[in-house]
Amino acid sequence: MHFMQSLQAAWQRHHSLVCVGLDPEPAKFPAHLRNDADAVFKFCAAIVDATADLVCAYKPQIAHFAALRAEGALERLIAHIHEHHPTVPVILDAKRGDIGSTAQHYVTEAFERYGADAVTINPYMGRDSAQPFLDRADKGVILLCHTSNPGAADLQDLDVGGRPLYQRVAEMIARDWNTHGNCALVTGATWPEQLAEVRALVGDVPLLVPGIGAQGGDVEAVVRNGRTADGNGLMISSSRAILYAGQGEDFAAAARIAAQELRDSINRYR
Amino acid sequence: MHFMQSLQAAWQRHHSLVCVGLDPEPAKFPAHLRNDADAVFKFCAAIVDATADLVCAYKPQIAHFAALRAEGALERLIAHIHEHHPTVPVILDAKRGDIGSTAQHYVTEAFERYGADAVTINPYMGRDSAQPFLDRADKGVILLCHTSNPGAADLQDLDVGGRPLYQRVAEMIARDWNTHGNCALVTGATWPEQLAEVRALVGDVPLLVPGIGAQGGDVEAVVRNGRTADGNGLMISSSRAILYAGQGEDFAAAARIAAQELRDSINRYR
Repeated sequence: MHFMQSLQAAWQRHHSLVCVGLDPEPAKFPAHLRNDADAVFKFCAAIVDATADLVCAYKPQIAHFAALRAEGALERLIAHIHEHHPTVPVILDAKRGDIGSTAQHYVTEAFERYGADAVTINPYMGRDSAQPFLDRADKGVILLCHTSNPGAADLQDLDVGGRPLYQRVAEMIARDWNTHGNCALVTGATWPEQLAEVRALVGDVPLLVPGIGAQGGDVEAVVRNGRTADGNGLMISSSRAILYAGQGEDFAAAARIAAQELRDSINRYR
Repeated sequence: MHFMQSLQAAWQRHHSLVCVGLDPEPAKFPAHLRNDADAVFKFCAAIVDATADLVCAYKPQIAHFAALRAEGALERLIAHIHEHHPTVPVILDAKRGDIGSTAQHYVTEAFERYGADAVTINPYMGRDSAQPFLDRADKGVILLCHTSNPGAADLQDLDVGGRPLYQRVAEMIARDWNTHGNCALVTGATWPEQLAEVRALVGDVPLLVPGIGAQGGDVEAVVRNGRTADGNGLMISSSRAILYAGQGEDFAAAARIAAQELRDSINRYR
């Protein structure tokens, strides 16, 4: 199924805008997994199996795997999600970006090697750098627009002809790059006004929203400012607050409770 | 040795501004390597061994390895360069960019796992996203400024307060981000005027220049517009024209000739 259809279906079926970020950090794993050679896979798979009916997407962050030489675990994790939870799309959070034939190799990495349904990419190099991704109408292409960190302002808020760069980026992508209807944008929860401005510019283009919880983004403001008219349109990402909700052998059950609470608190404002 | 010292020494010792891009594409390998399970490593190592006295840096492009599940070959290749050609620094061309703890994992990937001396990164997310890289005073941080592709114009040429974004980026990095003197910038050979403008803004900050050869960049214009007063300051990158100069068992000798010709043609204008 195409990513956008799959995302729409998950929003409806699971009544959820929660995207769980899979950012394994072995130092935070429960004690019983610490000496397990396959801990990265087992930890993430347990989180997934405990939360799959509560989410609209999973978002493994590739640096967390690469720093551990755990590409094999990432491959198996995504295969596990497809096999056991085929209704939940997988976003590879990689923020890639390069030109021509190299971009094509990143496409191969994300979609063939890892079998992701969508990937995050960086728009700084321009449309031709995104084109090999955009051409995959079956896959989601989630472009950075206004990120959740304080330094987002350094480039993204620069004034371009009377408005900030990120608005220009949002409009360019929604209007010109989205010919296959497979684009989405990253807009951080820590900037709720900017989120509303992006929503106003891009129609129903989905927004991937990191930055609630530890980074301080407010759920109510995100939902009110970012949802589409039908109450969907958002993938609200949470990683640490769900993954490390529990410290013991019941960590997956604790993650389920945290995911459920987040889903419910989001749904209060949908 | 720190990347910047190592680069300076290689410019002098090898009298060369050539950076060889290591972009393995098995379909282009000579026939005798095609069925070799370790072809990626063997091909790249042979190129390196044949050219190490002619270059100022090597630049393996990580997507080419990732698309082939060849992270192990990349690790061994960089270790091979350090062991056999310790005077030549290695730039991991990864164009990474993310925030906070995730950026730290990319730092671990580039510098601990792969042992690279420098890495390319994307500045769109702002200074705090670059900070974990910048803090590594011993490593080079090579930031995208004005890339070689036609789409570079989409964002990088947008007018920000009377001048293009890439100039603002160049100045911001040279003035504010480069506190450890470990920054360099990517400026494409296909835009020689922009290269001159960047050089004028950033003093002696080294420029990594892709886009000569297949992409059409002119060597004379690049050297005249990009060199520093001492005739250095550039890492002029070439991949395909060197790697695939020969098709037979003598491919490494052919690569040596191509690298030597490029070095000499650059040195004519230094």
